Amino acid sequence: MKISIIGSGNVASQLGLAFKKAGHIIVQVHSRNKKTGGELSKKLRTEFVTALTELNENTDMVLIAVQDDSIKKVILHLKLTTPLIVHTSGFTSIDIFKGKFKNYGVLYPVQTISGQVNFSALPICVEGNNTKTTSVLKKAASSISKNIFQLSSEKRQQLHLAAVLVNNFTNHLYAVAEEILSVKKIPFRILFPLIENTVTKLKSSPAKKNQTGPAVRNDKKTINAHLKLLQDPLLRKLYIAHSLHIRKLAKKKAKL
Amino acid sequence: MKISIIGSGNVASQLGLAFKKAGHIIVQVHSRNKKTGGELSKKLRTEFVTALTELNENTDMVLIAVQDDSIKKVILHLKLTTPLIVHTSGFTSIDIFKGKFKNYGVLYPVQTISGQVNFSALPICVEGNNTKTTSVLKKAASSISKNIFQLSSEKRQQLHLAAVLVNNFTNHLYAVAEEILSVKKIPFRILFPLIENTVTKLKSSPAKKNQTGPAVRNDKKTINAHLKLLQDPLLRKLYIAHSLHIRKLAKKKAKL
Repeated sequence: MKISIIGSGNVASQLGLAFKKAGHIIVQVHSRNKKTGGELSKKLRTEFVTALTELNENTDMVLIAVQDDSIKKVILHLKLTTPLIVHTSGFTSIDIFKGKFKNYGVLYPVQTISGQVNFSALPICVEGNNTKTTSVLKKAASSISKNIFQLSSEKRQQLHLAAVLVNNFTNHLYAVAEEILSVKKIPFRILFPLIENTVTKLKSSPAKKNQTGPAVRNDKKTINAHLKLLQDPLLRKLYIAHSLHIRKLAKKKAKL
Repeated sequence: MKISIIGSGNVASQLGLAFKKAGHIIVQVHSRNKKTGGELSKKLRTEFVTALTELNENTDMVLIAVQDDSIKKVILHLKLTTPLIVHTSGFTSIDIFKGKFKNYGVLYPVQTISGQVNFSALPICVEGNNTKTTSVLKKAASSISKNIFQLSSEKRQQLHLAAVLVNNFTNHLYAVAEEILSVKKIPFRILFPLIENTVTKLKSSPAKKNQTGPAVRNDKKTINAHLKLLQDPLLRKLYIAHSLHIRKLAKKKAKL
């Protein structure tokens, strides 16, 4: 396949490298950032163009791997008609392309792309505006990963929300725990086995079943003692929201 | 060492089995629950006693592995004077024993104990009321794990709070994500690589540095769109508390 890439951030770079490695031809790279764009085109041994209008019509797929907010601007200036136009966003609807291109779709890798990425086992969600584009996207994605899911924009948005919870918010909890411990000079690695065990359990039984701790057993004494240890009012709100919702899920489960 | 065990739940059972395997002699088991207590004493090939007053003075260490709320009751009826008296709670202060026994302490395994546990790499926190008991506790803990930390009650309580965040609350986020996806019939396993990657990163760089997502980049459009997808007011509160505190940490970091 002939692939052109718009963007030179982590997603653009890693997808570009993965597609090249899989044997595809990277036709051109465009980026607003001349430095990172130039660097990426060198890595991909391909041409770098500074204007969207310089992008060649003679390509099979154009990957728009830019920040969500910039996709609209790219679409506005992209004058190609033949190639399949694809964005890589988790939360942007496929309909952003509606009425602007004939063939379009989404290719969303479910991972925070930073540093070198091995796509082979990474889930990639695809969506096309018709059967043919969906099939082309599936084939393209399958050339870099074995883990392809066809998902509508509505479902992908729910997935993106869930991804924020299990990645951004859990990482945030790790950061808060790290800070609590560092103040008292307690090494954070004491918690590694606990953290890993929490994840390992997920694979054999649903998270709801694995829930432990003061909230699920309604241990108000410990909850109140923990709240006393938390100085930051925002963290107290966070602790309370978690505890109340854990309790709510537990009651719901008990009713079933 | 001669060890007696009070309790017959997960912690009592797993610690009892680990100490027996390490070559210690389990002298007696006491539990309010005759069924599970009897079963545990069979597993440990030792005597089961139904009353605390039947516990033998001729033992080196008495492990009180019961729920936090029950420790006080046990202490009230425990009339032993020679052995080292130890509880296994993460949040209960060592001072609960003050004035009641001569030698006492804490042995807290930092893990949710359920099913079979391999203690060998598990962090165990110990605290004794004097140098000698601390040293005995360290030695006992070292016989079942290589990962021993001496921690004061104050520090252990901070650790327990941090453990609730990284275990109970992250597991809760997994449960919420699982529910969001199951409503839309999206397989939860799509998120496994992302979940695992979040944990793997922790080992090479601090969580605060790894923070990604709409909150840290102040992407209000995505935040508001996510909030629209969340029906439950409690979950919306939880989402907002996380996002605000992620933003707060990011600003703090920028100031440094």
